Amino acid sequence: MANDSTDRIVDELRRWIAVSPPGARVPSNRELTARHGASPVTVQKAMRALTSLGLVESRPGVGTFVRAARTPRPVDYGWQTAALGAPPSRLTALPSAQRTPSPDAIALHTGYPDRELLPERLVRAAIARAARTDAATTRSPVAGLPDLQAWFASELADAAPAGITPPSARDVLILAGSQSGLSSIFRALVGPGQPLLIESPTYWGAILAAAQANVTLVPVASGVDGPDLEDVERAFELTGARAFYVQPTYANPTGAQWTVQRGRDVLEIARRHGAYLVEDDWAHDLSIDTQPTPIAAHDDDGHVIYLRSLTKSVSPALRVAAATARGPARDRILADRAAESMYVSGLLQAAALDVVTQPAWRTHLRTVKPLLRARRDLLIASLRDHAPAAHLDLIPAGGLNLWLRLPDGTDVERLVRACESRGVIVADGTEWFPAEASAPHIRVNYSGPSPDRYPEAARVIGEEVERAR
Amino acid sequence: MANDSTDRIVDELRRWIAVSPPGARVPSNRELTARHGASPVTVQKAMRALTSLGLVESRPGVGTFVRAARTPRPVDYGWQTAALGAPPSRLTALPSAQRTPSPDAIALHTGYPDRELLPERLVRAAIARAARTDAATTRSPVAGLPDLQAWFASELADAAPAGITPPSARDVLILAGSQSGLSSIFRALVGPGQPLLIESPTYWGAILAAAQANVTLVPVASGVDGPDLEDVERAFELTGARAFYVQPTYANPTGAQWTVQRGRDVLEIARRHGAYLVEDDWAHDLSIDTQPTPIAAHDDDGHVIYLRSLTKSVSPALRVAAATARGPARDRILADRAAESMYVSGLLQAAALDVVTQPAWRTHLRTVKPLLRARRDLLIASLRDHAPAAHLDLIPAGGLNLWLRLPDGTDVERLVRACESRGVIVADGTEWFPAEASAPHIRVNYSGPSPDRYPEAARVIGEEVERAR
Repeated sequence: MANDSTDRIVDELRRWIAVSPPGARVPSNRELTARHGASPVTVQKAMRALTSLGLVESRPGVGTFVRAARTPRPVDYGWQTAALGAPPSRLTALPSAQRTPSPDAIALHTGYPDRELLPERLVRAAIARAARTDAATTRSPVAGLPDLQAWFASELADAAPAGITPPSARDVLILAGSQSGLSSIFRALVGPGQPLLIESPTYWGAILAAAQANVTLVPVASGVDGPDLEDVERAFELTGARAFYVQPTYANPTGAQWTVQRGRDVLEIARRHGAYLVEDDWAHDLSIDTQPTPIAAHDDDGHVIYLRSLTKSVSPALRVAAATARGPARDRILADRAAESMYVSGLLQAAALDVVTQPAWRTHLRTVKPLLRARRDLLIASLRDHAPAAHLDLIPAGGLNLWLRLPDGTDVERLVRACESRGVIVADGTEWFPAEASAPHIRVNYSGPSPDRYPEAARVIGEEVERAR
Repeated sequence: MANDSTDRIVDELRRWIAVSPPGARVPSNRELTARHGASPVTVQKAMRALTSLGLVESRPGVGTFVRAARTPRPVDYGWQTAALGAPPSRLTALPSAQRTPSPDAIALHTGYPDRELLPERLVRAAIARAARTDAATTRSPVAGLPDLQAWFASELADAAPAGITPPSARDVLILAGSQSGLSSIFRALVGPGQPLLIESPTYWGAILAAAQANVTLVPVASGVDGPDLEDVERAFELTGARAFYVQPTYANPTGAQWTVQRGRDVLEIARRHGAYLVEDDWAHDLSIDTQPTPIAAHDDDGHVIYLRSLTKSVSPALRVAAATARGPARDRILADRAAESMYVSGLLQAAALDVVTQPAWRTHLRTVKPLLRARRDLLIASLRDHAPAAHLDLIPAGGLNLWLRLPDGTDVERLVRACESRGVIVADGTEWFPAEASAPHIRVNYSGPSPDRYPEAARVIGEEVERAR
């Protein structure tokens, strides 16, 4: 990396500045050049970085000095209490999956894949190529770059059986990540106070987006086979809901993969009730043992709103996803996106399209499968050996995580804190429930760094599970 | 650009495919290589692109063929009418500023700067550098990259007079464009049904974001000096509003720049009413004749929520902005952003920070000033010569547009359509009014391509203004 030595100098000087009085003279560029064995250009870059961060100031002809920190006076924000009132919904703390742990912890909580699982070379090359095109300096259309829309549409069309009219490129709306899609779909198609059926447990991000949109959640129990058809039928009947949010493929957190028949049956129920099925196909590229087919591929008349993200399979930095929706639903979602964010960076779109249209992308997906399988199986074996009381209902055929049932009465919050204090970060399963948790669970991911430390992590989890019973 | 010849081959074949029957044989790679004088690698890349777009399919050993288009059957989306109900707000058509005109039209409607006004080389180099760092493969923290937060904070701190406690880096929340900030601020700090004071006329994007958040707009007339203080006082008193959305610097559309005193007076009124001032400093980098100081620099206790975007000055593709907010307001906005989009691509953040911390960035800003001035003055002179009935109240000291008052009774919609049919795209001023327009206006921008065609455009506008009286 080009900037390594600059970064090193900046880091060292920041540490030095933190303990130096304002006005202290910073070592001269010549001294720094000598001390770090770096070129004058590198040292100058470091000094510019520190200046623009407001940490030092240079007096021409005199030298560079630690900037006098303004004395921060405590400010009274009490007036805001009346201005804001009580919060309307439970949009408060960050879910545990979003926390950044200390660098030496074993991170089993994060849903973002480790570098070895990403097509790193492809991504870097695609960004560098996009930097040379118009995508670096122009605005994207609101609905997205037409070729990327076409790519998402052709992927669904390829999965559609004969006789089904697949969505067109125009039906595809490009998003800056699928979380934005959830927010817009819940706002535009459900609306405040209206009922939304949702699996329980399910993705905490969907629960969060629903809270933001002020929709009323109607939980439908869902296990390793997906939801019970009678439960779904009854929930639609009782509430008059017009939408059901589902993850039929490697559901987060349970890992459930619905059978094709189950998918068709649920679609048929939604159809009879004049309702949308919001299919979140978050792990489409993360299959291990099976070949997933989206329910959307069987949809003929716009009942399925299909969410498909590249964030986890291409790169968390190329934050690109798509919502495919037909008819008036498409127009409502597009209008909401325009009001919310106007458009998605065309640079990210161009780079993502470049990655997924390279032949090496298919090769990468094939290479990742055995890596994911090995990680999953190692974590399962480690837990079996060291944490036998943490029960796994289902070995997931894809996705990135295991959903562990703990003994009845386990204090999950205490368990999570205890593991964290011993350097093992796991996620509290409670966050995946739209209402109370039906039983104590934790979620552990096999996509983070250092899979070689899984046995060590499992030992800690096992000991703390015993202690928390 | 590396992909030019690939793109050319793809384009030509797409045109050919569009008029060819399904199953038609695509010329062989050898023929294409010869015909285009291109390398086999280039031709193979083109064929891969067409395959991944679903336009052709290859049968190994036989050849490549135009893919049988599925027969699109018209689908009945009537069931969605009941599912969706009537739309809750006026989030419908796209505002005229977002439309993409035909390539030979003179585009005076768009708010995005032409390439010559952007630091193109800096942007491309910054993206290429970011592609080699961790920013290309990792997730950003929810609030943004700490160094970019620090840069935005130091910019405000530098403008703050002595004795004022400036916001810290933690108070800065990085956004994917300021539109997202408007949405979150209106949702998180005002809320559905609650009053929001807003200048009239003002930025249509703010009106759109307010409609999405279902807040109740309270228009306050605002002219070339900003709003009248008594009007502001009265509006706060009558409605009990807790927020006022303002553009004190080169307001869009009027070009108004408030005096420092006016800014302090309005801040004082907001303070007395326990309310937020949402300061949208959209044109901070686009000054021509004056040196703007944000009201936020004078704010000591979190009354100003400060929005600052790099989209228009760095690149529309590096969609990065910041909302600076203190106290509980910051937490509310952050929680809304987390629910809405989780995080902003770190790649865009790293590249934007790289651009604005280069010494060449300052040079670029100095270079752009005379270009903007020349464009502005040429457009003003052209309109004075050819469209004397279109009256300009104020020569804006910065920003990208002119706000033209038309003769009473002008049918603006008809005028805009008539200009468009003659290849000149102007924006209908009606979209900038939160309620009815107080008078007929159009907005014309001097930031688009081909400033040499301003006289031609002004002639068309002048003729059509006469015709529409």
